[in-house]
Amino acid sequence: MTHDLLLRNVRPMGGEATDVLVRGGHVAAWGAGPDAPLEAPGVPVEDGAGALLIPGFVEAHTHLDKSLWGMGWRRHQAGPRLIDKIETERRLKKEWDIDPARQSARQVVQSLRMGTTHIRTHVDVDDAVGLAGMEGVLATRAAYAGVMEIETVAFPQSGVMVRPGVADLMEQAMRMGADVVGGLDPCAIDRDPKGQLDLVFGLAERFGKPVDIHLHEPGQLGAFSLELIIERTRALGMEGQVTVSHAFCLGDPDPALVNPLLERIAALDIAIATTAPASRPVPAAATLRGLGIRLCAGSDGIRDTWGPYGNADMLERAMLIGLRNNFRRDEEVEMALDICTRGGAGVMRLEAYGVEPGCRADLVLVDGESLAEAVAARPPRRLVVKRGRVVARNGVSLVESP
Amino acid sequence: MTHDLLLRNVRPMGGEATDVLVRGGHVAAWGAGPDAPLEAPGVPVEDGAGALLIPGFVEAHTHLDKSLWGMGWRRHQAGPRLIDKIETERRLKKEWDIDPARQSARQVVQSLRMGTTHIRTHVDVDDAVGLAGMEGVLATRAAYAGVMEIETVAFPQSGVMVRPGVADLMEQAMRMGADVVGGLDPCAIDRDPKGQLDLVFGLAERFGKPVDIHLHEPGQLGAFSLELIIERTRALGMEGQVTVSHAFCLGDPDPALVNPLLERIAALDIAIATTAPASRPVPAAATLRGLGIRLCAGSDGIRDTWGPYGNADMLERAMLIGLRNNFRRDEEVEMALDICTRGGAGVMRLEAYGVEPGCRADLVLVDGESLAEAVAARPPRRLVVKRGRVVARNGVSLVESP
Repeated sequence: MTHDLLLRNVRPMGGEATDVLVRGGHVAAWGAGPDAPLEAPGVPVEDGAGALLIPGFVEAHTHLDKSLWGMGWRRHQAGPRLIDKIETERRLKKEWDIDPARQSARQVVQSLRMGTTHIRTHVDVDDAVGLAGMEGVLATRAAYAGVMEIETVAFPQSGVMVRPGVADLMEQAMRMGADVVGGLDPCAIDRDPKGQLDLVFGLAERFGKPVDIHLHEPGQLGAFSLELIIERTRALGMEGQVTVSHAFCLGDPDPALVNPLLERIAALDIAIATTAPASRPVPAAATLRGLGIRLCAGSDGIRDTWGPYGNADMLERAMLIGLRNNFRRDEEVEMALDICTRGGAGVMRLEAYGVEPGCRADLVLVDGESLAEAVAARPPRRLVVKRGRVVARNGVSLVESP
Repeated sequence: MTHDLLLRNVRPMGGEATDVLVRGGHVAAWGAGPDAPLEAPGVPVEDGAGALLIPGFVEAHTHLDKSLWGMGWRRHQAGPRLIDKIETERRLKKEWDIDPARQSARQVVQSLRMGTTHIRTHVDVDDAVGLAGMEGVLATRAAYAGVMEIETVAFPQSGVMVRPGVADLMEQAMRMGADVVGGLDPCAIDRDPKGQLDLVFGLAERFGKPVDIHLHEPGQLGAFSLELIIERTRALGMEGQVTVSHAFCLGDPDPALVNPLLERIAALDIAIATTAPASRPVPAAATLRGLGIRLCAGSDGIRDTWGPYGNADMLERAMLIGLRNNFRRDEEVEMALDICTRGGAGVMRLEAYGVEPGCRADLVLVDGESLAEAVAARPPRRLVVKRGRVVARNGVSLVESP
């Protein structure tokens, strides 16, 4: 289903106020300014009241299958190590009935009311839940197909080499229709970097799918794993088809470690996904952008067993990127926002993404004098439009969640 | 003016629902639980609807005199260095008519609607604005005396040794009624650490006032300045009367640098104020608390010429403290909140601060199942009470700003 819509008095990307006409789910035309209203008889009209018009946000790194959203408050109890969080989660998924279909639907609706129109989600594939996560998220993807586009990553959260059977499950997940092959910490979690990465890239090659690997490993260890990823990307001719999520090692203070990696990442068009955590070194956003490296952003887990934070607001994520990178000038804050919009679109390879005529009409209206003010103030979204259809208004979703 | 108030069905610090009676601006009694309503004929009643009851937030580090709040969006243009921000600000204060009285009043009202009931503000004293900042903030303090308690720090933002006349202005500011003697970066800004610190501590001694010094200097340089502050605190017997704001050097990764400083800070009861910035190393909150060091928090500048961020929401500050320190378990998130409430009260030496009978009735009602949820979700404040008087409701201030 696509839709027609006339947005009156909106400011595309903070520019001059004008009307914007949507026809058949795409932006058809901009008006010539405030004194030249567009006319489109029979087309539904929304008054933008001078709000900013920006493209729908791209939530490029999250975990839809295991949010606790809407399940009441649960005390957070996991220990400090990554493995503590993984093991606590495996236990609580059963104890708490964290149903992937229900929970992914809830997070999708929360994202939608915040203005997100595209999501890349990592879905746990492991020997505890099997393919239940994939099944649940695929059910949600089907149920919300008209209002949210979802890309799934088959994600071996608990490891694949250290868990018998997970390799087969990963293959089954790809057959079910996973869009991307996932991986994580091939040294720290799987204790077998060659084994995991050969398996991940092997699946990618066989299924003709891209790769997105969580890499929390810091410093020299992370650099080693990243080198192995780089080598495989080059060997398999997978330029432009690999994303490394987090890539904390690229936040290392030693430029002798970081800079050669960045050069090779840029040359192979490997993308980086960041959540801009405050507590860890992270890749420097402006440096990556300056090198032409595709950089996208995501919320990571939202109120899950790993931690209590998150609200799926990509304007807030842009603020957190800004705070993390000490972005203060308007053009820097605009870059943080761009990472949450066009940056994600570049990683998810979304065609015709934007607010210009010809673009898909996935749009957000938000109050603010400027793009930077929208990031700093993060007001409720005045209007969220998916393919020309109004799906949220004044911060309230018009689509129901379970 | 003090007030009476009966709060029905509230959960003090997230505990069991009960009624809370305020008499004469102080908490007079808690009920015995949901089945034993308090009776107080003639006293105004507010239905708490089961909301959390917490003490008013303490904004322990901000700059009321130079916020741009309510002045429309201004593009941020300052360069990357501290001195760029100082010099840009000196210029724009004049060009943009950043009136300290008007702007401090606006920020006070914004703070109030977010649930803050006490503010420590650093007020610029320099050779560009003279004492206009102090005059403006003192006017605001008088105008809002019934709804916000404000402590002023005479703050030589542009330096005192490098700026002829500022030493005299600092002395005049203290005579005008500044509550605290301020300072900043005695090496980096004033190029004369002995000179600045002797002057600052000399004023403190003569006026019998505490000290609060901005210390952005990192690593060994910051450690050196901090040692000079420690030496003067001990020599003058000023235990418990000195705050160091930011203290980024305490976030240095070298424990051989940090730990001896922390021991001496704890021994002399020097307090630390943090804004928990994501882009810089900061003192580790849990470590400081574990050593018994008083730790408070603040928003720092809110939407000023230094940067675009900030909304005076101390629940959001607690979240940022949590994110910065990788606090995930509920008790850790509660610690972050405690830093923004009792932590600030400890630094400002507020008597009878809390929600228990006998405490001043500076109270906030906020929805949430738990304290940690309030930090993660940051909903509008249901009710803000100052000395028993309702001053904000559902996120809207009942007190007007200019």
